[in-house]
Amino acid sequence: MNPSPPVSLWPDPEALGPLTDLYQLTMAAGYYANGMAGKTATFEVFVRRLPPNRSFLVFAGLEQAIGDLARLAFSGDQIDELRAWPAFRSLPAEFFEPLRSLRFQGDVWAIPEGTVVFAGETLVRVTAPLPQAQWVETFLLASLGYPTLVASKAARIVLAAAGKPLFEFGARRAHGPQAGMLAARSAYLAGFAATSHVEAARRLNIPCVGTMAHSWVQAFETEREAFEAYARVFPDSTTLLVDTYDTLEGVRLAATLDAPMAAIRIDSGDVADLARGAREILDAHGKSHVKILASGDLEETGLAEFTATNAPIDGYGIGTELVTSRDAPALSMVYKLVELEGRGVYKLAPGKKTYPAAKQVYRRVGADGRFESDLAARADEPPPNRGEPLLVPILKDGRPVAPQPSLEEIRQRCADQLAALPEPLKQLETDYEYPVAYSDLLEAEAQRLMTR
Amino acid sequence: MNPSPPVSLWPDPEALGPLTDLYQLTMAAGYYANGMAGKTATFEVFVRRLPPNRSFLVFAGLEQAIGDLARLAFSGDQIDELRAWPAFRSLPAEFFEPLRSLRFQGDVWAIPEGTVVFAGETLVRVTAPLPQAQWVETFLLASLGYPTLVASKAARIVLAAAGKPLFEFGARRAHGPQAGMLAARSAYLAGFAATSHVEAARRLNIPCVGTMAHSWVQAFETEREAFEAYARVFPDSTTLLVDTYDTLEGVRLAATLDAPMAAIRIDSGDVADLARGAREILDAHGKSHVKILASGDLEETGLAEFTATNAPIDGYGIGTELVTSRDAPALSMVYKLVELEGRGVYKLAPGKKTYPAAKQVYRRVGADGRFESDLAARADEPPPNRGEPLLVPILKDGRPVAPQPSLEEIRQRCADQLAALPEPLKQLETDYEYPVAYSDLLEAEAQRLMTR
Repeated sequence: MNPSPPVSLWPDPEALGPLTDLYQLTMAAGYYANGMAGKTATFEVFVRRLPPNRSFLVFAGLEQAIGDLARLAFSGDQIDELRAWPAFRSLPAEFFEPLRSLRFQGDVWAIPEGTVVFAGETLVRVTAPLPQAQWVETFLLASLGYPTLVASKAARIVLAAAGKPLFEFGARRAHGPQAGMLAARSAYLAGFAATSHVEAARRLNIPCVGTMAHSWVQAFETEREAFEAYARVFPDSTTLLVDTYDTLEGVRLAATLDAPMAAIRIDSGDVADLARGAREILDAHGKSHVKILASGDLEETGLAEFTATNAPIDGYGIGTELVTSRDAPALSMVYKLVELEGRGVYKLAPGKKTYPAAKQVYRRVGADGRFESDLAARADEPPPNRGEPLLVPILKDGRPVAPQPSLEEIRQRCADQLAALPEPLKQLETDYEYPVAYSDLLEAEAQRLMTR
Repeated sequence: MNPSPPVSLWPDPEALGPLTDLYQLTMAAGYYANGMAGKTATFEVFVRRLPPNRSFLVFAGLEQAIGDLARLAFSGDQIDELRAWPAFRSLPAEFFEPLRSLRFQGDVWAIPEGTVVFAGETLVRVTAPLPQAQWVETFLLASLGYPTLVASKAARIVLAAAGKPLFEFGARRAHGPQAGMLAARSAYLAGFAATSHVEAARRLNIPCVGTMAHSWVQAFETEREAFEAYARVFPDSTTLLVDTYDTLEGVRLAATLDAPMAAIRIDSGDVADLARGAREILDAHGKSHVKILASGDLEETGLAEFTATNAPIDGYGIGTELVTSRDAPALSMVYKLVELEGRGVYKLAPGKKTYPAAKQVYRRVGADGRFESDLAARADEPPPNRGEPLLVPILKDGRPVAPQPSLEEIRQRCADQLAALPEPLKQLETDYEYPVAYSDLLEAEAQRLMTR
């Protein structure tokens, strides 16, 4: 038995340097040893393929990724421990000393958060000395992939909810405590009205919601006592959870309660059917102002059905399906070397083709304001006649080039982007594939490298 | 534009108190206001249903959950901010003052990590003053669910790999940077040989592996230069990635290299087929000692096929499928009130029945050492004639009751547990449902409460 205290798996935000794959460090050492540490490399983040059930993605996570990137560092303890590892025993001490003061000093361009993006598009472009650019790969992907997954899922839910307010309830089912924080932000960014996550709401300054769980009702002798007791303490914002025993009985009880009440919540069963019954009961008791909220493993196809059938539900709490992106929990987001010392670099592994050269992505918008098509082109070729560039500068020499948008601004951008989607992409199911093309120059360059 | 620095979503490990749903705090306030804060409650963590493709789970995450639980606290800043929130405006200051010194002071019993568990079984039992027990719900579930998901997926992969070593490569695809750390631990616990995650390996003192990515190969003029340069720097541990351009050409190059080499890695294409070709080439060049590693979106059904067809693969790198538990990314893990001041409590919501009373789980093992069946019984009823109790005391009054097992001990326990699985549960697909029964006393109590 080990008498030592439990190992914490909370990283120190000031020492996130080793949150990376070992091969990033062995390669970095290899570049130093081979005199290549000063070479300038450009890597690009993109998504290889859209996951199942997704016809677009909402890019998210950049603010935290960049914030952490700018302070990515190794602590002295970390370096002392690492150099004793078998993997590094063939390395001279000279490799480890520079790690002590290592910071990311590269340039970063990126598509702003809240932007609708597609497979194959450069989302982030990193230009830095080769070992630095390599070092940050794992951390960047880990920081951007999940927020993008959740924002993309949230956008589908927002479209399906057709204007009804959405509440993010997933903290307990996210992949660990930090994921819950990231999910709350992505959900809000994509149009959710609020989160139940207290610390996420506090950090992000976003609305926080929540009233009672089943345990509250169970903690009293009767459901009536539970409801009355809650209304006494929180007269302004009472939402009564009515399905602990028998849902419609719970609604009847709530309807006859002599207490202020804002809403009831139904968390199980056929929520559309129960909502209809609840609406009738509430209305019959003169409680037409009392809203009906639904929760319990809800997702976008269910919501679309509620919308289509006019279920009298006034808002939705969404948890597990959103925060795990259950129908598509992984994103083929990659970070690929595209240029080294100004020379285009490519890759041919089956299913993993990569276009060479630093890129810009241009979006063409029609006269109706809807997105028409995107074009990826070399960053240094003349821009096309039509189309706005999506990538903007974020860091220069590791330092912010301009103030970044606030979360409210990102949220507004996302709303504008969803409004500008081509009509088929607003449907939950579609065969429509948004056109993303590569410039003639890029195609020619790829062809030239391939046949070489 | 907001000129403020990026918001960090890394929590302070010393102020994890608000990593919870708002309703936990409103309910806590409600219990104080109603004079119920001193009532003793027992909540139990269990999984309602096994997810798709899982016939058992491996319980994991307890060490970190308990470590964090013991120091769960609010900072002064957090409290000052929260009390200004609209949700709390009807509350008196008296509710907030005790938060400043609030610590979890309850009792915890739990099934040890690495144990094979099933749906409906009490995994953790928390007995504490009602508001405290409520407060910790979200955090406990967020801390236990994901590690259990990954350990359970990892166990399937371990069974399918049939003794071949497994390497956890998923840091970039986990749901945020912390999830990658948690995944590395769960994978090792369940029998993986190593991780590529540097910080996870350092914290947990587990083997770390990794050599080169495609970018290494691309960074040199030719594949040959890339291979030779790597072997010069790391003569002891060279694993060459051979699929950047043409896999078998890459293997031929590696086979003819005048450099020490431990292994080659194939990361794309039909890896079984390519491994056969690679084995032939390596053997023909007198490199029978060079191992073949495979990676690239591998999961247990693929591994089982490699095992069944004797593919000449010596080890596997597993990432995305493992760390997102892609085929089953969510667990219906819940935390339910079962007892209040010694009185059994239940819940009837459709599909969400909860058995009352604090429980112990007993496992019966056959003469062949295999698990036969489990029995959930009241913790205070006489134990059954056969069966070992699974839940052990962890915290008493918020303090550890005994040294907890080390990660190596947990890993050994998991290996022993997997060896003791009934034969059908060692198959990736099975209709066999492991028998979990409730004691006569529990069934009678549930019946009595239901008909009341």
